[in-house]
Amino acid sequence: VNGDLVPSIGFIGLGIMGAPMARNLVRAGFAVTGFDLNAEAVAALAADGGKPAGSIAEAVRGADIVVTMLPADQHVETAVLGEDGVLAHIEPGALLIDFSTIRPETAQKVAAAATGIRVLDAPVSGGQQGAVDGVLSIMVGGAEADFAAARRVFDAVGRVAALVGPAGAGQVVKAANQLVVGGTYALVAEAILLMEASGVDASAGLDMLAGGLAGSRILELKRGSMLARDFTPGFRIDLHHKDMGIVLDAARQAEVALPFGFQVAAYVQAARAQGLGDRDHSGLLAVAEQLSGRSTA
Amino acid sequence: VNGDLVPSIGFIGLGIMGAPMARNLVRAGFAVTGFDLNAEAVAALAADGGKPAGSIAEAVRGADIVVTMLPADQHVETAVLGEDGVLAHIEPGALLIDFSTIRPETAQKVAAAATGIRVLDAPVSGGQQGAVDGVLSIMVGGAEADFAAARRVFDAVGRVAALVGPAGAGQVVKAANQLVVGGTYALVAEAILLMEASGVDASAGLDMLAGGLAGSRILELKRGSMLARDFTPGFRIDLHHKDMGIVLDAARQAEVALPFGFQVAAYVQAARAQGLGDRDHSGLLAVAEQLSGRSTA
Amino acid sequence: VNGDLVPSIGFIGLGIMGAPMARNLVRAGFAVTGFDLNAEAVAALAADGGKPAGSIAEAVRGADIVVTMLPADQHVETAVLGEDGVLAHIEPGALLIDFSTIRPETAQKVAAAATGIRVLDAPVSGGQQGAVDGVLSIMVGGAEADFAAARRVFDAVGRVAALVGPAGAGQVVKAANQLVVGGTYALVAEAILLMEASGVDASAGLDMLAGGLAGSRILELKRGSMLARDFTPGFRIDLHHKDMGIVLDAARQAEVALPFGFQVAAYVQAARAQGLGDRDHSGLLAVAEQLSGRSTA
Amino acid sequence: VNGDLVPSIGFIGLGIMGAPMARNLVRAGFAVTGFDLNAEAVAALAADGGKPAGSIAEAVRGADIVVTMLPADQHVETAVLGEDGVLAHIEPGALLIDFSTIRPETAQKVAAAATGIRVLDAPVSGGQQGAVDGVLSIMVGGAEADFAAARRVFDAVGRVAALVGPAGAGQVVKAANQLVVGGTYALVAEAILLMEASGVDASAGLDMLAGGLAGSRILELKRGSMLARDFTPGFRIDLHHKDMGIVLDAARQAEVALPFGFQVAAYVQAARAQGLGDRDHSGLLAVAEQLSGRSTA
Repeated sequence: VNGDLVPSIGFIGLGIMGAPMARNLVRAGFAVTGFDLNAEAVAALAADGGKPAGSIAEAVRGADIVVTMLPADQHVETAVLGEDGVLAHIEPGALLIDFSTIRPETAQKVAAAATGIRVLDAPVSGGQQGAVDGVLSIMVGGAEADFAAARRVFDAVGRVAALVGPAGAGQVVKAANQLVVGGTYALVAEAILLMEASGVDASAGLDMLAGGLAGSRILELKRGSMLARDFTPGFRIDLHHKDMGIVLDAARQAEVALPFGFQVAAYVQAARAQGLGDRDHSGLLAVAEQLSGRSTA
Repeated sequence: VNGDLVPSIGFIGLGIMGAPMARNLVRAGFAVTGFDLNAEAVAALAADGGKPAGSIAEAVRGADIVVTMLPADQHVETAVLGEDGVLAHIEPGALLIDFSTIRPETAQKVAAAATGIRVLDAPVSGGQQGAVDGVLSIMVGGAEADFAAARRVFDAVGRVAALVGPAGAGQVVKAANQLVVGGTYALVAEAILLMEASGVDASAGLDMLAGGLAGSRILELKRGSMLARDFTPGFRIDLHHKDMGIVLDAARQAEVALPFGFQVAAYVQAARAQGLGDRDHSGLLAVAEQLSGRSTA
Repeated sequence: VNGDLVPSIGFIGLGIMGAPMARNLVRAGFAVTGFDLNAEAVAALAADGGKPAGSIAEAVRGADIVVTMLPADQHVETAVLGEDGVLAHIEPGALLIDFSTIRPETAQKVAAAATGIRVLDAPVSGGQQGAVDGVLSIMVGGAEADFAAARRVFDAVGRVAALVGPAGAGQVVKAANQLVVGGTYALVAEAILLMEASGVDASAGLDMLAGGLAGSRILELKRGSMLARDFTPGFRIDLHHKDMGIVLDAARQAEVALPFGFQVAAYVQAARAQGLGDRDHSGLLAVAEQLSGRSTA
Repeated sequence: VNGDLVPSIGFIGLGIMGAPMARNLVRAGFAVTGFDLNAEAVAALAADGGKPAGSIAEAVRGADIVVTMLPADQHVETAVLGEDGVLAHIEPGALLIDFSTIRPETAQKVAAAATGIRVLDAPVSGGQQGAVDGVLSIMVGGAEADFAAARRVFDAVGRVAALVGPAGAGQVVKAANQLVVGGTYALVAEAILLMEASGVDASAGLDMLAGGLAGSRILELKRGSMLARDFTPGFRIDLHHKDMGIVLDAARQAEVALPFGFQVAAYVQAARAQGLGDRDHSGLLAVAEQLSGRSTA
């Protein structure tokens, strides 16, 4: 922690999620130095009160806390573990918070490689809007003291954060979350299909389901748009597909058999293969529909 | 409706669900004449202010409304459609409300066979406790006027009732409900398993899931008991197994392909085959656990 | 057995399968009296040397052996178990051979209802061409002595017949057969899809599979037509769909969980729902293809 | 090609499969220089007429053909692509034949990295006994001229070899093969289970299946051992599990949805998690059995 008690943050990855998160950190009073391969993103942060950096090294050097928010495993491999990456330049004793959603194994690799510093894996849910509003949910893996040290950062970007276990645990919980979310869409899709094909008033039927033991956040928020076949994202199939790849890997690493999870992965893959990659993940309904020859498209 | 404006009800099927429902109808002021093959159940209703009947004919004759609450399709086939069943003795113009959970096809068969009377299929959810407390959810198939006519009955036994379509529609919605409920248990089970096998604090992890898009009534109500492997019913696997048989039939009738629903049916069957028939349906977790060789039992 | 040692046969059900089977029995020297609801089918049998009957009673009366070959459970319920059906008119001590493919439970019901006579369930595989050529495979449930007594009949219509257990066992083996056949088509379909989508020469690839541990009769006979998307039946999806319904029922009766079998049932249902009911069952490839957005149709 | 027309071979990876393959190449007259991290394996090759090497560099230098037979992707990454690996030392114009079973993506990476040399991916099936007997099946990806140039090598170790497409195609076909093999075991397992649980003579039943459209190499070779629950390998679950991981990756790369393949992956994972990793892959029957609570173990 620096002299005036405002920790300095080096922020790597100013994309759709990272940019608003960095902005929220600036607003919360942190001194944020940001880097992204996209120079415009860096300029935008500077316009919002952050400090631009021309390289990872520049962003990271002298920072109390380094934050990474990257699209996928390979970017973490390069930007964090790579030759000129975060670990090569981070200050001894600094805290690295990786908000990226990646494989638990990669998160553990980062933790193992990070000697002399502290590391948390901290994938989020809540989407782009949640990032803008600073109300993300943050699933954290690492040590309790480090989790405590990250509290102010989490408060600035999220609504709730929980320590769920050692290194990689945050990623496992995020994977479990995506498995349940994807599977719930598939179940609701089949319920809709069964009702519609049976000549039932599916809207009235879903109201009943939503009010009972079948109730879910997805039924609450999405039943209207699903019935209307409005698959405007929201959270894109392509991203859910990436996340289901992490579920497959996490299951293999943990040596558990997840027949439902694997089925979900196959259906999300189908949605993508059918050209729905840029539609909302509720678009799993379109896959179910086509499977039963009821596609109106 | 009879002269003093209190409709008389003939009630067939005073089992675990039917008995408290009949009692609630008595309490609501209906004149209830009850019949069950089990004489003790009939006596119990009489002790609560109902009128005992020695046969279906006796219970049904003269009743404005006939209510049936039977365990399965074959009982409806016999007690309603059979030689000496409800349809043989019900008064012209009377209203038959079948609360049984059965195949849509059987419900439609009853409706088709019921000439000169009015029929609603009205399966419920909410379990034994819901029946006792009079807070069942009632999914109703039939005509709007008949639904309106049944309102006072529904109010006496349920918290919410909705007309969801023509004859059989109530059964379809109940089937869709059980598909989603069973599938959600399976998804939550896999999430728990993945977290536990990965060394994650599953309780903290489920808290995160419960608070976000993965949230569901099941996560809200059952995550504690599932983590503790407390499978005290609740709603028994055997009953859910019966209901998944209805889902299979309903899907074939509607000509829709439900790969997730069929998978759920296979897992509920597995739970039953593993001897968990009298445990709560959250016991699907035990199936998932054994599949991954993590069974502690 | 009658005086001149040529057993007389009453044959019920002269459809696509039954007609050629009856003809082969005539050719083998049996005195065949045939009945069908379709009068033309009866006339055709008469033209081939059989004896026409105007009712089940007429076909069955005096026959040493009664053969039934009916489309589905409900027809057996009516024509065998019904008021004016086979059991009402069959001679004491006669042998009833039911070649129909039906639920094991229905076969057992027939056996249980058949007092004073002998019964075999004897579903066949080999299709219409196999029936014409008299080379069917016959899976038989019942008693050993009755199986021995049926030997000449089986020789006349089939290439191989085996006693596989007590009443209903023939139906179970037929169900198991259809599960494996349907599943193998699904697996081969996914193999083709994976290869084609990867830019592999699928024909050369299937040759390799066919020659090794992945080899199967289906790969041997159907890989060419599948690669050419020629789904001329053969054995129609609609019939396979009916048979998968029997698999679902048989699994429930036996209290076994068959996740792959249930998945196959879902896919055959999908094929039918997509309008492929009258195509060959190898058309499961079209379902796989559409699921991955690779449909050329 | 060297002066006396006997191509020299550098052979990397003298394990369970590689050792007998190298020996067969020596017997076929090739000058084989072998390397393995296990010095005993190198000594054994030398005793059989090969030439020992102390490093990859030593084995590869001067060789007309380099053969690699390694356990998994990471070994190929290191031994072929790594700093001191095959590509760093192989002669310009030499031919690299990689017999390892790895991800298509890794095979393509090797091909892309191999400038100035020729590369074939050539995974095999047939198991350890097939390697000893020199009767492997070889699925080859690469260019036709290179396939022709490798003919003598393939003849020495295999019974059949086929060029199935460009770089990576051999791996795709191998993956498709393992998908079909694993799935067929699962289907046969469910057929056995259904028959046994129904009181059917499963042995007689499987004979019928084996003789008809359900017939397969697996039914032919393995039905006896499966009925006897003899899961002596053969091909181990652990290896099939590794291969199903390749199927998952290949499906994602090809952007196809493989619900059956993914289901197979889940069940092979289950077998491994249940402690059957060192049993034969026909041990999928034990998973099916336990799922239905019929495990005798």
